[in-house]
Amino acid sequence: MNTTSSLREDARAAADGIDEARLWRRLAEMAQIGAIPGNGVNRPALSPEDITARALLIDWAQARGYGVAVDGIGNLFLRRAGAEPDAAPVMTGSHMDSQPKGGRFDGIYGVLAGLEALEAMDEAGVRTRRPVEVVAWTNEEGGRFPPCTMGSMVFVGAKPLEAFLDVRDNAGIRLGDALAQTLAATAQAQPRAFATPVAAYVEAHIEQGPLLERSARTIGVVTGIQGMRWFNVEVSGESAHAGTAPVSLRRDALREAVAMIAALRELAADPGDVTRFTVGRVLVTPNSPNTVPSHVLFSVDLRHPDQATIERLGAAVEPLCRAHAAACTVRVTPTLRDDPTRFDAGVADLIETGAAALGLPSMRLPSGASHDAMYLSRVCPTGMIFVPCERGVSHNEAENATPADLAAGARVLAASLVELANR
Amino acid sequence: MNTTSSLREDARAAADGIDEARLWRRLAEMAQIGAIPGNGVNRPALSPEDITARALLIDWAQARGYGVAVDGIGNLFLRRAGAEPDAAPVMTGSHMDSQPKGGRFDGIYGVLAGLEALEAMDEAGVRTRRPVEVVAWTNEEGGRFPPCTMGSMVFVGAKPLEAFLDVRDNAGIRLGDALAQTLAATAQAQPRAFATPVAAYVEAHIEQGPLLERSARTIGVVTGIQGMRWFNVEVSGESAHAGTAPVSLRRDALREAVAMIAALRELAADPGDVTRFTVGRVLVTPNSPNTVPSHVLFSVDLRHPDQATIERLGAAVEPLCRAHAAACTVRVTPTLRDDPTRFDAGVADLIETGAAALGLPSMRLPSGASHDAMYLSRVCPTGMIFVPCERGVSHNEAENATPADLAAGARVLAASLVELANR
Repeated sequence: MNTTSSLREDARAAADGIDEARLWRRLAEMAQIGAIPGNGVNRPALSPEDITARALLIDWAQARGYGVAVDGIGNLFLRRAGAEPDAAPVMTGSHMDSQPKGGRFDGIYGVLAGLEALEAMDEAGVRTRRPVEVVAWTNEEGGRFPPCTMGSMVFVGAKPLEAFLDVRDNAGIRLGDALAQTLAATAQAQPRAFATPVAAYVEAHIEQGPLLERSARTIGVVTGIQGMRWFNVEVSGESAHAGTAPVSLRRDALREAVAMIAALRELAADPGDVTRFTVGRVLVTPNSPNTVPSHVLFSVDLRHPDQATIERLGAAVEPLCRAHAAACTVRVTPTLRDDPTRFDAGVADLIETGAAALGLPSMRLPSGASHDAMYLSRVCPTGMIFVPCERGVSHNEAENATPADLAAGARVLAASLVELANR
Repeated sequence: MNTTSSLREDARAAADGIDEARLWRRLAEMAQIGAIPGNGVNRPALSPEDITARALLIDWAQARGYGVAVDGIGNLFLRRAGAEPDAAPVMTGSHMDSQPKGGRFDGIYGVLAGLEALEAMDEAGVRTRRPVEVVAWTNEEGGRFPPCTMGSMVFVGAKPLEAFLDVRDNAGIRLGDALAQTLAATAQAQPRAFATPVAAYVEAHIEQGPLLERSARTIGVVTGIQGMRWFNVEVSGESAHAGTAPVSLRRDALREAVAMIAALRELAADPGDVTRFTVGRVLVTPNSPNTVPSHVLFSVDLRHPDQATIERLGAAVEPLCRAHAAACTVRVTPTLRDDPTRFDAGVADLIETGAAALGLPSMRLPSGASHDAMYLSRVCPTGMIFVPCERGVSHNEAENATPADLAAGARVLAASLVELANR
């Protein structure tokens, strides 16, 4: 077992500098931006609400004298200088966008815990060798512009920005246009290139599952992220009059989409309840009660921790949809392909050690959700810190967490960042 | 058989006064308002496009000195005076709203054929005993604000206006607000009460089916309209994270909606291909790829010409949806209940006689689509005149009809209106 003596003095000082009340107050202030009934938040990526949240974050950073930079997809970087100003920074962060009916903690907690860690270092007089940066990644949710984890994906070079500029939201707005508006609103930030070196990355997040709460542990040491496949399935038929067109002659896009969804659900059926299968988005055209639908777009989200299984499930989606296209045509577009991720063992050990040194009960666990840390793990040693959330509820207005647990996560984060930034 | 001698002189004069080129030109002009690619029209009820179309129609009516009146749901009445100004008018008309991806003839043809008939009477110097009115009924399509045939339904008193004020479109706009804007834009029109007496009603419309074209007949004498049931089915579950929530614990509203739609399709399966079953509208909340849907609303449109069958099918919808609600709750709201309609035999005879007298081949046929004539038939002798449309295609941008057939329908309409207005 690790002992308290395993934390260096400056790391402990930074952890002790975490101000639970300040962190909670800022979470509450951010939750006002895009607030919806039921204590929820609707802050879509690259929306006016996102722009407002960015402005507030920049205000807080500038009050501390942190550098502010932004890259071509809008990822926002707040930099606390290090003794070696040109050394690759240690990064932390998460995202500020939310699901359409999302909660007050998913994403924004990781950004504000990072800011809190920087301020704790200031107040403890800690000087690190490397710079430490807090990043707010653009469009982690993909709720408005699929796919998710877009900002980190583009930052590390897994996909070029150009691949996403023509993605449209449910209202038909182009990502490129919304991005231009967002960038124009933060014109004071320094431009930052993609794929700049990163020494290490640690992301704090609510668990979004029930394991920590059930096990009465405060800190989750995340071992990795399950594999994931996303698809857009577009079914094209022909619109017709609901009263006059004989059913046998119709090319009804919804009828065939329903058959495809039912077949995909069969494919993903899993007695062990490990496979995750979700159709979350359906767009029907023209969407009028007395017209046979000419076009349906639906999303498929498939996840499994095992590489061979996610491979097999993902490969079956297109043939299965084709098999259920009768009078209509179908186009299946893969929009995300993430294999299972294992985080760096050294970073996990560091987090576990830090939690123990601070007297916080921890456990190792995998992540069911995907996170920007997945893409950062491709370019640097990466880890994640989970804190409990009530009943594991997330992507829901009722999402909740306690001030004490959130502060505990920020303490472990601050200690880990100082350790990493001095290596 | 009827002979040409069976048409009175003034009825024939009115028929002969129909100007094919003028009618075609006006249809083309109206098709510009809300024009969409593929020769189609998107002119939702109570939209800015609807308001523009109303203004143009009023201009044309005022140029002829016709009276203009509007009732509380925006039904627009153009009145050509009769010798007995206080006699109940004979009415004709149809609607100016369209499906979201609709054609250039559905509805607007009946309005402009009516206006053409009035002008033909002017030019032939025909004086009728009763006034003759052209009505543009509000929201016949129900494509934006369900249900359909709303304007005529409220006019005849089948439902009060108040029942519909809170209906919302797919963007969340309230009907009452859109209606207030529309009424404000036609403030120059005389206010008209609901349920004023009507002596008779004849509506001209494209067939929206293939029978006239296949049979090489120009005039359809419509015998009646099949029965119809509309429902909104709302499935309520709970949103959850697509990556973390175990499938077995989800309350996935889309999963259960898909099961209900599949079961309803089974219910409506008909080897004889007479039953019409359509799910045309689906709204998913929050409609994000990585969130389990908390709420789904879908429409059901069921039609059958036989009273007992439509009764049986309609009664089965709610129990069947309930049987497929497992983890979710379901609310089934009937939004339209129209029993099969038989039109007045005398009006049908008159139309048939008129067609024969004008040398136009006709046939009797039922209507698969519903029309405002359905509600008018509850308060006065009512009939409908169909003209052919290409391949029977309707509720589709490709909807088409020939200038000659459209003028032929207007000729039979003009003759029928004069006959009825002199009774």
